[in-house]
Amino acid sequence: MSRTEIKDYGEFGLIHHLTKNIELQNASSILGVGDDAAVIDHFGKQSVITTDLLVEGVHFDLSYTPLKHLGYKSVIVNLSDIYAMNATPTQITLSIGLSSRFSVEAIEEFYEGVYAACEEHGVDLIGGDTSSSQKGFIISVTAIGEVVADKVVKRSTAQKGDLICVSGDLGGAYLGLLFLEREKKIFLESPGVQPDLENEAYVIGRLLKPKARKDIFVFFEEKDILPTSMMDISDGLSSELLHICEKSGVGCVIYEEKLPIAEDARNAAYKFEIDPTACALSGGEDYELVFTIKQDDYEKLTLNEQISVIGYVTDAEEGAKFKSKGGNTFDITAQGWNAFKQ
Amino acid sequence: MSRTEIKDYGEFGLIHHLTKNIELQNASSILGVGDDAAVIDHFGKQSVITTDLLVEGVHFDLSYTPLKHLGYKSVIVNLSDIYAMNATPTQITLSIGLSSRFSVEAIEEFYEGVYAACEEHGVDLIGGDTSSSQKGFIISVTAIGEVVADKVVKRSTAQKGDLICVSGDLGGAYLGLLFLEREKKIFLESPGVQPDLENEAYVIGRLLKPKARKDIFVFFEEKDILPTSMMDISDGLSSELLHICEKSGVGCVIYEEKLPIAEDARNAAYKFEIDPTACALSGGEDYELVFTIKQDDYEKLTLNEQISVIGYVTDAEEGAKFKSKGGNTFDITAQGWNAFKQ
Repeated sequence: MSRTEIKDYGEFGLIHHLTKNIELQNASSILGVGDDAAVIDHFGKQSVITTDLLVEGVHFDLSYTPLKHLGYKSVIVNLSDIYAMNATPTQITLSIGLSSRFSVEAIEEFYEGVYAACEEHGVDLIGGDTSSSQKGFIISVTAIGEVVADKVVKRSTAQKGDLICVSGDLGGAYLGLLFLEREKKIFLESPGVQPDLENEAYVIGRLLKPKARKDIFVFFEEKDILPTSMMDISDGLSSELLHICEKSGVGCVIYEEKLPIAEDARNAAYKFEIDPTACALSGGEDYELVFTIKQDDYEKLTLNEQISVIGYVTDAEEGAKFKSKGGNTFDITAQGWNAFKQ
Repeated sequence: MSRTEIKDYGEFGLIHHLTKNIELQNASSILGVGDDAAVIDHFGKQSVITTDLLVEGVHFDLSYTPLKHLGYKSVIVNLSDIYAMNATPTQITLSIGLSSRFSVEAIEEFYEGVYAACEEHGVDLIGGDTSSSQKGFIISVTAIGEVVADKVVKRSTAQKGDLICVSGDLGGAYLGLLFLEREKKIFLESPGVQPDLENEAYVIGRLLKPKARKDIFVFFEEKDILPTSMMDISDGLSSELLHICEKSGVGCVIYEEKLPIAEDARNAAYKFEIDPTACALSGGEDYELVFTIKQDDYEKLTLNEQISVIGYVTDAEEGAKFKSKGGNTFDITAQGWNAFKQ
């Protein structure tokens, strides 16, 4: 019998391989696998549903992640997917698997973070499952949101000429991770050395306590903007842009000089002698939104300092391109986080 | 800082401890933590949502669980929770975490089982997440169902005088587990010995390929029966009855002679020199339904051989009682599976 290694597929390849033959049977199943969230119809209002599995040692490292932050972030990453569908998150379920090394007090801290995120976003924790695990901490969150039918924003509906925008700034979370990994290494080698993270609060905060961009969702509503496509940035801008291009059957051009990078992130990158632009393109976990809008909506956007226009949508034949400050053009490639690469 | 061990709470205690302060914020959140599934309102029709986390080495043992059966069962245990709310399952999401020891072919087998369960119950797989795990196989399924508002059946609404009923037969899955564990032990000690499971197909099937009782749900609809309370039996009849009594503020009496036990399960119990009744009371994973009905509905039930009346609901002060064939009365105690007991 033949054996194919999971890493030969990669995360997205494996999901596609396993789900490509699904034919939805229920009239209420409007949108299935393949976007930030699935969509279920309820007589005009639609439910949006998304789920994430977080595994200790794979998605988080408890040696530098406070449990309260972890609880907060576990919820936020799912709410971010709901906002990325232009929907209001309303409920979550939370399942956790725990080895006996965790005390009840530790789990309470985790739940404090969960409840903080729920409160901040007006979301109810309505169910879940608690079990033991043989090793480490396992977290599974499912988030549910609602949206009127014609306001759902998918990945597959960007059109040529649309402007490409991102919220906030990019690359910070990845740089925060580099600092924490470096300090962990130093600590393991020389436990006496004090951590030197004083000036890195911004990028570390970006990693440990990301925000779901509710404010952008509210701004769209207030200004009557309906993006033509949208995703949240969990695997890195390049990876998400390629998803939008592939699903929408379009190409794109983005400009290096337009990429929003925080001053603190830029300085952090220089300390590691890496290119801030590379961090903005390929660093994951910022949980910002990338979206496309019709050119006619451009004026409305200029009111919001949290939104940057970084390029525009082209024909599929033109590919996905990146224009550097030096004027060179490169193909955008996904170097985003891949769960199965070693 | 004090340290409380998780096992001091137990699974249900821990969930209660962590969720007791939740106040639902969304008008659409009709029912939260504490039943088989949560309920979300959508203008008269309600969504029912439930989730389960299954961890290798805790909930299943791949040395005797074929992956296809595991995929099937992972879905079925969630659909069972949806039927236990008197709702029609419509969608699931599935997240899996995998170590690199699994090949794509192995995961395909797992998904074959998942799709078989989906097809059997007319359910759509609409989303999920695939990631790596450091150790073993992790499965998280969330199931969604729909029901008209006044047909939701909770645990908390049994009333004095109601009849207590169960579907199918009980104890089989636990006996199947005993055989498989015994054979595993023999195999590990003497790999040359052939397994002796020839006559145990029934009980092993009960464990590896449980059925969600869609037929009972359909029967209720056809005969216009609305149970006054209902749960699925995953942790054992005793444990579930105590939940219903506690949540409904009632007591109960059940009769040993009325407990449905399959002939094959009875014979299996004798081989292990254990009491078939104990298996029926405390063995988990049968995924049958336990429910209460008004006495007026009794006549309708007699048409269905798959339903046994095992007792009736009493006042809370009378406690939860078991009457043996010998005429003795015992308190019902939960010896169901507890995820945190060693």
